[in-house]
Amino acid sequence: MLQHPTLANDGYRLWLQYAPIEKSDLAEGYKQQLQQIYLSNTSATMQVIQDELDLALGKMLALSPRYSSSNNSSTAPGLIIASPSQRPSLNEMITSEEYAALGEEGYLLRTISNGKKTQILITGNTDIALLYGTYELLRKLQTHSSLEKINLQSSPKTAIRVLNHWDNPDRTVERGYAGASIWDWHRLPDYIHPQYLDYARANASIGINGTVLTNVNANAQVLTPYFLRKVAKLAEVFRPYGIKVYLTARFSAPMELGGLSTADPTQPEVQEWWDNKVNEIYEYIPDFGGFLVKADSEGQPGPQNYDRSQAQGANMLAQALKAHQGIVMWRAFVYTNETPDDRAKQAYNEFKPLDGDFDDNVIVQVKNGAIDFQPREPFHPMFGAMPQTPLMMEFQITQEYLGQGTHLVYLAPMYEEVLDTDTYAEGPGTTVAGIIEGRQSGSLLTGMAGVSNIGTDRNWTGHLFGQANWYAFGKLAWDPSLSSEEIAEEWSQMTFTNDPSSTETITRIMMLSHEAAVNYMTPLGLHHIMGWSHHYGPGPWVTDKHRDDWTSTYYHQADRLGIGFDRTVKGSNALGQYAPEIQKLYGNPATCPEKYLLWFHHLPWEYVMPSGRSLWEEIALHYQKGVDQSREMLYAWQSLSTEIDPARYHQVESFLRIQEKEAIWWKDACLLYFQQFSQRPFPKEVEKPEHSLEYYQNYEPKFVPGI
Amino acid sequence: MLQHPTLANDGYRLWLQYAPIEKSDLAEGYKQQLQQIYLSNTSATMQVIQDELDLALGKMLALSPRYSSSNNSSTAPGLIIASPSQRPSLNEMITSEEYAALGEEGYLLRTISNGKKTQILITGNTDIALLYGTYELLRKLQTHSSLEKINLQSSPKTAIRVLNHWDNPDRTVERGYAGASIWDWHRLPDYIHPQYLDYARANASIGINGTVLTNVNANAQVLTPYFLRKVAKLAEVFRPYGIKVYLTARFSAPMELGGLSTADPTQPEVQEWWDNKVNEIYEYIPDFGGFLVKADSEGQPGPQNYDRSQAQGANMLAQALKAHQGIVMWRAFVYTNETPDDRAKQAYNEFKPLDGDFDDNVIVQVKNGAIDFQPREPFHPMFGAMPQTPLMMEFQITQEYLGQGTHLVYLAPMYEEVLDTDTYAEGPGTTVAGIIEGRQSGSLLTGMAGVSNIGTDRNWTGHLFGQANWYAFGKLAWDPSLSSEEIAEEWSQMTFTNDPSSTETITRIMMLSHEAAVNYMTPLGLHHIMGWSHHYGPGPWVTDKHRDDWTSTYYHQADRLGIGFDRTVKGSNALGQYAPEIQKLYGNPATCPEKYLLWFHHLPWEYVMPSGRSLWEEIALHYQKGVDQSREMLYAWQSLSTEIDPARYHQVESFLRIQEKEAIWWKDACLLYFQQFSQRPFPKEVEKPEHSLEYYQNYEPKFVPGI
Repeated sequence: MLQHPTLANDGYRLWLQYAPIEKSDLAEGYKQQLQQIYLSNTSATMQVIQDELDLALGKMLALSPRYSSSNNSSTAPGLIIASPSQRPSLNEMITSEEYAALGEEGYLLRTISNGKKTQILITGNTDIALLYGTYELLRKLQTHSSLEKINLQSSPKTAIRVLNHWDNPDRTVERGYAGASIWDWHRLPDYIHPQYLDYARANASIGINGTVLTNVNANAQVLTPYFLRKVAKLAEVFRPYGIKVYLTARFSAPMELGGLSTADPTQPEVQEWWDNKVNEIYEYIPDFGGFLVKADSEGQPGPQNYDRSQAQGANMLAQALKAHQGIVMWRAFVYTNETPDDRAKQAYNEFKPLDGDFDDNVIVQVKNGAIDFQPREPFHPMFGAMPQTPLMMEFQITQEYLGQGTHLVYLAPMYEEVLDTDTYAEGPGTTVAGIIEGRQSGSLLTGMAGVSNIGTDRNWTGHLFGQANWYAFGKLAWDPSLSSEEIAEEWSQMTFTNDPSSTETITRIMMLSHEAAVNYMTPLGLHHIMGWSHHYGPGPWVTDKHRDDWTSTYYHQADRLGIGFDRTVKGSNALGQYAPEIQKLYGNPATCPEKYLLWFHHLPWEYVMPSGRSLWEEIALHYQKGVDQSREMLYAWQSLSTEIDPARYHQVESFLRIQEKEAIWWKDACLLYFQQFSQRPFPKEVEKPEHSLEYYQNYEPKFVPGI
Repeated sequence: MLQHPTLANDGYRLWLQYAPIEKSDLAEGYKQQLQQIYLSNTSATMQVIQDELDLALGKMLALSPRYSSSNNSSTAPGLIIASPSQRPSLNEMITSEEYAALGEEGYLLRTISNGKKTQILITGNTDIALLYGTYELLRKLQTHSSLEKINLQSSPKTAIRVLNHWDNPDRTVERGYAGASIWDWHRLPDYIHPQYLDYARANASIGINGTVLTNVNANAQVLTPYFLRKVAKLAEVFRPYGIKVYLTARFSAPMELGGLSTADPTQPEVQEWWDNKVNEIYEYIPDFGGFLVKADSEGQPGPQNYDRSQAQGANMLAQALKAHQGIVMWRAFVYTNETPDDRAKQAYNEFKPLDGDFDDNVIVQVKNGAIDFQPREPFHPMFGAMPQTPLMMEFQITQEYLGQGTHLVYLAPMYEEVLDTDTYAEGPGTTVAGIIEGRQSGSLLTGMAGVSNIGTDRNWTGHLFGQANWYAFGKLAWDPSLSSEEIAEEWSQMTFTNDPSSTETITRIMMLSHEAAVNYMTPLGLHHIMGWSHHYGPGPWVTDKHRDDWTSTYYHQADRLGIGFDRTVKGSNALGQYAPEIQKLYGNPATCPEKYLLWFHHLPWEYVMPSGRSLWEEIALHYQKGVDQSREMLYAWQSLSTEIDPARYHQVESFLRIQEKEAIWWKDACLLYFQQFSQRPFPKEVEKPEHSLEYYQNYEPKFVPGI
């Protein structure tokens, strides 16, 4: 049982394990190729590249490469890392059109020959592009890929690829399940925690180019000089890695910090206050990225306080930032405190009329679904509905509603499902991915945000597999068309092992995991039926709170007749916010995808499903299936007990055991609760509940993390 | 600048680094001696011993020792680890008197000879004693000590050696400066975090045999089955290491959990509730240690709520625990909300009349000083005043008032100063150490508690040198007569390097550090003049709060005439609580130790000090000296830049730079503030302040850690 944890692999190195390559022929080939490197160490970023190569090649190959930026070196380099400005002769090999197509951040990775020798070329227009290309090359080594005949050209499809940290200045993290905030504000700017550097490395390795350091439920204090000095230091640390810092702007800051009597965006003194504040910020951080704003939502101040529109609020900030090339990410997550209408409809209703009203440097940040990061949601109806407004995607990486830091749920299939969905906004083929890539708005301001799952836990994310969600987010932000399965495979190889059978098993677990969670939590379109406030575990009985749309009964609408939220024209008609093709498809229970059925329809318990079973039976069997799948994941992982290092093996195994137990908890609690209404027996395939409904209703997890 | 933090020594291994021994002759000798080990692996504790030997000898010597518990082994063992019950022949070598003298936990470490061969013997009456002896042997290896002619017999001088975790169930830590609580309650009992094992190893290695898991500002929830299942799992993990778990008992729990209308200790139903609760706890944890209680203090409920005495409160709990051999640690930190009297006097006033009233299994836990863990305090007057009551010492390891997680302050000299002080309670020679060793009460119930500085920070304590305070606490709890300097030297060798010159430098820094902090914070007996609430940085101007005895002006009493708190007979006469010898010595400013001068006396600014300088000048020069000393520490550390691994070197260097900066902050803020009253110029030796008094008064650190 004892494993000498002090010697264990604790997961801190993420997907940058750089495990020694033990296949000697492979390692020998890499070594030959990489022992001499052309690299012109002329900037902090080029130094980062060299350091990363030293680290990676040292660990994987026990190689200390030689670097030179001389063209007269006696040995021809096997690897050339250079921009055309560093090595003008590249212009003879790569056309200016090719370079232009790469843009600022894109890189080209190509196997070339100098006549005598095969060389690998990494090129691009900027040092950051070279850094991205270097990580791509290292990824090839980590996945034991051939370096022959590479011809890879890669440019990001979105411009702003940012993590959103819901980190408070007191180091608590809202919906954080991996310890405290990694920002040690108290000791900044004087102490640079080594984790900042590894954070930057990890993000750069997957193309993330921005970080919003502070919580969307914002504290105005972060805009004071006391904090700006600290923020500036982080910006300085991140700069060589191509990562810009952003802050959240509390809309009422002019009152709280400036002593103004109003934060009305139409008042000149308010505009002036923000202009001055922004100028001040840029004195500290010349390449400050801009603001992320949550306004008029869940108690946050905003333009509604002054009867102004979201556009008026956003544009005021945009105005202040424009001169500095800063941007505003304005969240669409706006809903009133009064719940006069289906919450799913409110953001659309608020923003749709404002299409075209936002300034050029505003991008509206829209969650993947219209409620709030449920295990599964149909895509947000704002995608496709705002042709003249840049929209960026907000995914949640932290698993607020998906088992938090304890359940293994690989989120990329969920991201992929949304990104690949056709909105029909401009006829067939207008996918959500296309919209966030700017194909509808035509704007170059595009982006994807991921609500971070990072904390001070030694493995960064609490659950080791949480790392995969961070990884996949970065990859999909760079290229939303990537396959979640291929990302899983790659991540698994880099993180755990290159053994094909183990890779297959890990990938299978990951690809099964999201559907499993949906099945044991909220199958068939059910949503928002988790425990009150902390959102951990089942709570379908949650009712009678101070606002209806935070309760479970509001969302599942279960009664003697049936279950589900009617969002068709007969109900809230949230469906009316989608394109006619979608309305038609989803509006009819017979054609509505089963996974969204109870999202859009209230149906009788005896409703006959395509399987021939009743809705009640189908719900029950889905819960059971989730349990079965969680078990399958556990057993599959256990088959790897000799393949994975003990510390990481045991952590994941412990967590998978908890997940199986809690899948049963979800199944039993939800089915016993719904059975009160359905008045039907459990299908024989469903395991008997371990406890009574009363037991589950009284079982309240205490002090769940995440505030 | 980049150091590849992923490969760095992050300090997680504490003083159990087990660095490879590079001196080949030394290593060879150890190897010869330790390759064959007699060890009877018959219990979880014996397994722990074997695992630790494997780890330590593997890392230090690349040795995989052979184990045998057969006396017919072909090779005679070079190391014998056995109790007489495991190896009866030991009774021929060690007398039963010697064994009796060792007690339960004491060990004997001796170089013996079997005629042909030199052997090392570790023996004791219990497996835990053998574990302690093994750590002692490993300490000898880590400090490169000779194994020849060892004859060491060591038994702890106190029975209860416990850490007090001020850890809340939500994982915040009151006065914690090293991240979150290491207790992952949410995932317990299903997930055993590897850190629990390393926590147990570290504590066992220094003789700590108990841990109070929860905050003294207690939440009754920890006594519910929901938590007890989790506590039981921790107890199970710690048991092989000889560590018992304790919990804090919220005095009002019978009302909060039991629904009673009162928690009055004289009410039978209250006694019955506690009896049942305790019986329940022992069902979960058969060797549960008992309760730590903070009652009637800073808003905590207690017997005063029912006009009952502290003894009545404590005895009720003791009654419930007695049948199970559990104990009550009842804190003496009681003071009223009304502050009718000098706070320094209140605990004594409350407890002194109760001497002899406490049940046998109650020990009163007294802080080292009468106020609250100030940078320096005279010993608490209760020591020596309660001859019929077991008193245990409460030291604070977490540096609430001493630079928290950022300043290097080695606390052992402060502990030592208190322990070595003569109370004169029963004539000369009644030291505080003697009292807590039970020499006055005659009770076998003795102990020392340390308020933990441990958190989830990768190096456990935030500041690497915070580890030394944990280490020194354990060593001093085992033997209060140890020298703080020798502990520093030993810790430094185990933690950093055996190089004699580096060890000397590190020891010098450590031994300088406490006096330096006292000088730049609160010289000459000043106290409690730090920032409001968070207690970080200077705040001599803090005044007019809802209670006087939480303000600075109450404690320094500075005015045009002078400065200091008059605790002589002309003042509060707190001095009257001490023995007449102390009263005489401290009561006269001319004989009162300078370090306590303003603790006991209000003196005019022009008062002539032994140096011939005025009090004002002496205060000013002490602040300057603190700054000079903090600089000296920094420079001394910088001389080690090539001797210490980069990650640990840089962290400490960064923190020492902050410490120097903040020493100046303390000096400037306090001197400018006091100068308003003294109306005297700064002595020429004192560096000019960097800012105005107003600047310092307006400078408020934000979001200081530690809640």
